[in-house]
Amino acid sequence: MTQQLTSKQIVLASRPVGLPTDANFAYREIPVAEPGEGQVVVRSIYLSIDPYMRGRMSDAKSYIEPYGLNEVIVGGVVGEVVASKAEGLKPGDHVLGMLGWQTYNVVDASAVRRIDGTVAPLSAYLSVLGLTGLTAYFGLLDIGQPKAGETVVVSGAAGAVGMMVGQIAKIRGARVVGIAGTDEKTALLTDKLGFDAAINYKTVPDMRAALAEACPSGVDVYFDNVGGAISDAVMTLLNDYARIPVCGAISSYNVTDGDTGPRVQTKLIKTRSLMKGFVLSDYADRMQEGASALAQWLAAGQLKYEETIVEGFENVPKAFLGLFKGENVGKQLVKIG
Amino acid sequence: MTQQLTSKQIVLASRPVGLPTDANFAYREIPVAEPGEGQVVVRSIYLSIDPYMRGRMSDAKSYIEPYGLNEVIVGGVVGEVVASKAEGLKPGDHVLGMLGWQTYNVVDASAVRRIDGTVAPLSAYLSVLGLTGLTAYFGLLDIGQPKAGETVVVSGAAGAVGMMVGQIAKIRGARVVGIAGTDEKTALLTDKLGFDAAINYKTVPDMRAALAEACPSGVDVYFDNVGGAISDAVMTLLNDYARIPVCGAISSYNVTDGDTGPRVQTKLIKTRSLMKGFVLSDYADRMQEGASALAQWLAAGQLKYEETIVEGFENVPKAFLGLFKGENVGKQLVKIG
Repeated sequence: MTQQLTSKQIVLASRPVGLPTDANFAYREIPVAEPGEGQVVVRSIYLSIDPYMRGRMSDAKSYIEPYGLNEVIVGGVVGEVVASKAEGLKPGDHVLGMLGWQTYNVVDASAVRRIDGTVAPLSAYLSVLGLTGLTAYFGLLDIGQPKAGETVVVSGAAGAVGMMVGQIAKIRGARVVGIAGTDEKTALLTDKLGFDAAINYKTVPDMRAALAEACPSGVDVYFDNVGGAISDAVMTLLNDYARIPVCGAISSYNVTDGDTGPRVQTKLIKTRSLMKGFVLSDYADRMQEGASALAQWLAAGQLKYEETIVEGFENVPKAFLGLFKGENVGKQLVKIG
Repeated sequence: MTQQLTSKQIVLASRPVGLPTDANFAYREIPVAEPGEGQVVVRSIYLSIDPYMRGRMSDAKSYIEPYGLNEVIVGGVVGEVVASKAEGLKPGDHVLGMLGWQTYNVVDASAVRRIDGTVAPLSAYLSVLGLTGLTAYFGLLDIGQPKAGETVVVSGAAGAVGMMVGQIAKIRGARVVGIAGTDEKTALLTDKLGFDAAINYKTVPDMRAALAEACPSGVDVYFDNVGGAISDAVMTLLNDYARIPVCGAISSYNVTDGDTGPRVQTKLIKTRSLMKGFVLSDYADRMQEGASALAQWLAAGQLKYEETIVEGFENVPKAFLGLFKGENVGKQLVKIG
């Protein structure tokens, strides 16, 4: 059945300098091969659109290989098996994997895992039950280690990771303050997701004063998704022995003329605080623990999630660029077909 | 016998703005009280002169209380008991404590501990066997955790803490690169203290290139005593999962117009590295472990130490100011009487 199929594909046409543009991406059409022994053909349903992918578009040394020029961009994908020569997977099954930005992928069955759309919506496996939920879980609990009564500040709080961080911190009994970039986002955080306070960094006249007011007991954990001037302001309010999981620096990813700000050393010494960068794969051996906890909290109604879904494969670059303009609330996905 | 004694005393006359000057200090003479029950009178022999004291001269929030205006400055002191109303301490005993910058201190016996000048020179209890040795021990081994074959970079390497860090890292089998500010210091590090390489940051044309050459396998542990541009350069060479004990930021202590530089977040994420500020008192419950290890290494000839000794109580401010000009090699002490 796959002989007549063609797949659309998005490749990295050039490496972005500063903010990515449409010109960095190129569309192709490729024939979809017959699956070999042990392989499946997966029709994409949801593509996960994530800020970390910006890093892979540069060729600087990092924790994962850069995307190759003129090679397909790879990310989280939820799809449906449409052909299978693999035991245990049959057409109609839903699967999750790190696959190409393509409408169809032909991959070894070991590259995907089956997911159950009756337990949670398919898209949830890319957000609350997926990479972003797990990133929040491990970064917050392993590095941040919030205790009941402590104050946790989250930047990028209305993003897919940020809103999970805040809710998990609330489950752990912390006071949670979110930072986001629109009044709709801050209202979502406080009115729907249970944050104790939220600050719109784009409209607040004095970020540090607003933070100080929202954090009368100082900051014990700062989950940093953004870097830049927002983080500079949070750093001034650290309590002794504060912990800073450094998850993302979206404000810096597209900076080309030097990302400079106050040095952190003196503050770290004075407060004996810890900053640690991390990525989810650091916790590869604890995925089951994280996935179970998230699924339980979701089932118990303790975790809510939000998605921003753009329709159509042709809108993938637009959705990606939107991340850097703060257009998404919660997880940014593209729905295909 | 103490009735006729007077003590010289140095008080904080004004808080320094930028580099401290003589005008920030004032001399007084005070009568030495008779020791009360459980007290001793200690004649100062060595005063410990340390960069962290600059922090206590400001009134910013920090891990220890600021020095009070017009109050005596307190630091590490080795002295001799000259009068005692305390059990277990008698005139002629040598003791160590956090005492005033005075020629005589009258204190509770619990504020000092007896030291043995036959095991090691008295001054060693303020350096290799004292606060600076212990600071190196805990910061390097608890936060830095160097493994055999890893590369450890130390800034302020010819300072009292730095030279202990490098030697302990060598004991642990690491490759050690020191950064210091004179050719005499770098020669000391490589020729006498066993460092694998040393860089004179004041004369090297390109700090980053010199570091890259000295660290062909990158940097696994960066023991940071200085902050500033030197640390900016080291940060560019971090390996994955690097550890950065942040012990001091002497380059920043006197900066009044903003200590700014490249933000660290992106590098921490890309390398999943850890930075942690610390002070020795964080390890209060492990002092015996550290002191034993240092004493054993010293006895075994595995630790060498250097001192810069200025004579005369009237030269205490000069010795302190010299820290910020890099005048000391190893531990800066003032010898009295």
